[in-house]
Amino acid sequence: MRTQVAIIGGGPSGLLLSQLLHKAGIDTVVLERQTREYVLGRIRAGVLETGFVNLMREAGVAERMDKEGFIHDGTLIAYDNEQFRIDFAKHTGNHVVVYGQTEVTRDLYNAREKMGGAVLHGVADVELHDLTAKPYVTFTHNGQSQRLDCDFIAGCDGFHGPSRQAIPLSVRREYEKVYPFGWLGVLSETPPVDHELIYSNSARGFALCSMRNANLSRYYVQCSLSDSPDDWSDQAFWDELKRRIPEEAAERLVTGPSIEKSIAPLRSFVTEPMRYGALFLCGDAAHIVPPTGAKGLNTAASDIHYLYTGLRQHYLDKDSNGLDVYSQKALARIWKAERFSWWMTNLLHRFPDQSEFDIKMQRADLEFLRENDAAQTVLAENYVGLPF
Amino acid sequence: MRTQVAIIGGGPSGLLLSQLLHKAGIDTVVLERQTREYVLGRIRAGVLETGFVNLMREAGVAERMDKEGFIHDGTLIAYDNEQFRIDFAKHTGNHVVVYGQTEVTRDLYNAREKMGGAVLHGVADVELHDLTAKPYVTFTHNGQSQRLDCDFIAGCDGFHGPSRQAIPLSVRREYEKVYPFGWLGVLSETPPVDHELIYSNSARGFALCSMRNANLSRYYVQCSLSDSPDDWSDQAFWDELKRRIPEEAAERLVTGPSIEKSIAPLRSFVTEPMRYGALFLCGDAAHIVPPTGAKGLNTAASDIHYLYTGLRQHYLDKDSNGLDVYSQKALARIWKAERFSWWMTNLLHRFPDQSEFDIKMQRADLEFLRENDAAQTVLAENYVGLPF
Repeated sequence: MRTQVAIIGGGPSGLLLSQLLHKAGIDTVVLERQTREYVLGRIRAGVLETGFVNLMREAGVAERMDKEGFIHDGTLIAYDNEQFRIDFAKHTGNHVVVYGQTEVTRDLYNAREKMGGAVLHGVADVELHDLTAKPYVTFTHNGQSQRLDCDFIAGCDGFHGPSRQAIPLSVRREYEKVYPFGWLGVLSETPPVDHELIYSNSARGFALCSMRNANLSRYYVQCSLSDSPDDWSDQAFWDELKRRIPEEAAERLVTGPSIEKSIAPLRSFVTEPMRYGALFLCGDAAHIVPPTGAKGLNTAASDIHYLYTGLRQHYLDKDSNGLDVYSQKALARIWKAERFSWWMTNLLHRFPDQSEFDIKMQRADLEFLRENDAAQTVLAENYVGLPF
Repeated sequence: MRTQVAIIGGGPSGLLLSQLLHKAGIDTVVLERQTREYVLGRIRAGVLETGFVNLMREAGVAERMDKEGFIHDGTLIAYDNEQFRIDFAKHTGNHVVVYGQTEVTRDLYNAREKMGGAVLHGVADVELHDLTAKPYVTFTHNGQSQRLDCDFIAGCDGFHGPSRQAIPLSVRREYEKVYPFGWLGVLSETPPVDHELIYSNSARGFALCSMRNANLSRYYVQCSLSDSPDDWSDQAFWDELKRRIPEEAAERLVTGPSIEKSIAPLRSFVTEPMRYGALFLCGDAAHIVPPTGAKGLNTAASDIHYLYTGLRQHYLDKDSNGLDVYSQKALARIWKAERFSWWMTNLLHRFPDQSEFDIKMQRADLEFLRENDAAQTVLAENYVGLPF
């Protein structure tokens, strides 16, 4: 087999890149380890920056998102029983769109299918070869060993995929912070407690009231990394959530059976560089943010934007500059998103080694944010997304 | 002896309060442990917020400061060989005044003397009594035991003074962070390297280029807490400073013999409450900031403002409200100054336990600050001083 761009990973990043390249007349093959059903079953983030939304539009897959997504012009921040709002519209003239990653992936699969895009599922034993000369990928599919020759490889295969590992350790540098807690998340078919998100720093730990749509809520509480979802009955989860959000919100919270319950660890991670020869890393393959800043899918968006732009320049304008600066440009924006996500995480969680002084600093940060217009602008600009 | 307000401590806070109260017709006695010469020999901060400057004007002691002080409309921030400016004037319409604390103290002594203010030097064995009923202070002066009866006591006696200790531990709560490094400071009779301050985060540690006047410079380098000033020859100091500031600044740095060289530890400290019965704590007696945010004398200024206002209300309007809310109002502003000083310290120093990821976050903070208007506004508003 031969293609122009081999895309490893059929999550939203790989599919979006494939769709964008397809529309530019550039040929791709997407290799995905899991089944389509598995990928669509993953519960992930649901807050999209305008930059991501615009890429979906450019890829021609925004119709349902534009119809069903919820525009959020602000968010609520609570501490103890206090609550204040960050007005995105006022501070930035911009907003975010709440539309589940599952829906994004579904729209992308439907579009790839309609256009006959090559997306291979159940691919195993993926290996990347000869990245600095004539790149190719080998893998097993339907029990057969296969070889895919290509000009370039886009590594969209997430944190645990083989792409990053294909960059020799001698040129690869990794930066990591593992946070000493997790998020216990519950999905329930209940109306969200508020039409905006509520981020809450309580003495009992962080909580987040989020949503997917008018009858699908996503709630989180900070938990110990040694907890298991089985330790938490639905009742225990709702009781704990109510203790961590302002009384007024707890009173109107509608609870119901969980339809999904899981614990996610929190990690900050960046690898440098993001390009090695013909290989370009995208999204979680190169970087992870803790979910506090709602940046998960959005950090992938700038990578895809820079890579898509670079590949277009290469194929259509015979100009390699976009690809040459890919790593540098992608990393410059990633580090800003890492900074924001790390700051939001520090602002809102309880840490096991926090001193009384540290807790006072957190409180002072929250009170300063509540009162200071410029500090609110900083948060709002980062939350809706810094420019590409 | 009897007075209305016994002021413990004859540093700038105590003297300024005494002078303000004197002008309002309120009687004070200032008790100072050291000689006047000793107090005037202490080398301290030199950056004054408008709030402090205005109190000096209200006290009628601003004439020389207004003539000789330098208005700073901005400051420079450097990292490695990069440098950018925070424009206070543009972001806040305000500025700071560079005028040494020694000069402030000298002006206040001269004013108190001219008005025959009671300032006792060489006072020892100060003890505070009966704070919740009929307060008085006992002490030794010129070998004589003395008793000073009063309505109120202002504890302006610094971190190590007896005032804070007079608040029972059962009602006192203390918050502290000790930073794992010190500042080695050198005073030299040389022209400052720049007409504004340069704060520098280098891989070798923090450095600060500061000044007192056109021919008196104050420079600092972050050093180990186990260092002694004797370990550092003048040459070693200048060599190290030059390695930590941008080349362009290092090239025009004028060096000369040090006329003072000392190491100061960095500490964040707050005690709550700041009032106990008739005792009101002011300045370093209640709180310490690391010097990075140039807040030292300025945090005392808001205390003095609130206490002066409260005492005026009490004596002139027979209204105790100002005194009743003193602790709450003073602490609200102090915690914001603590937050800013802690943030600036974290932004600019190297910490022994910093991971590679932490260093990247520091760098991302600096680069975000360099590029983002709202982030610069946050820094500028804090640096020139939040409103009382």
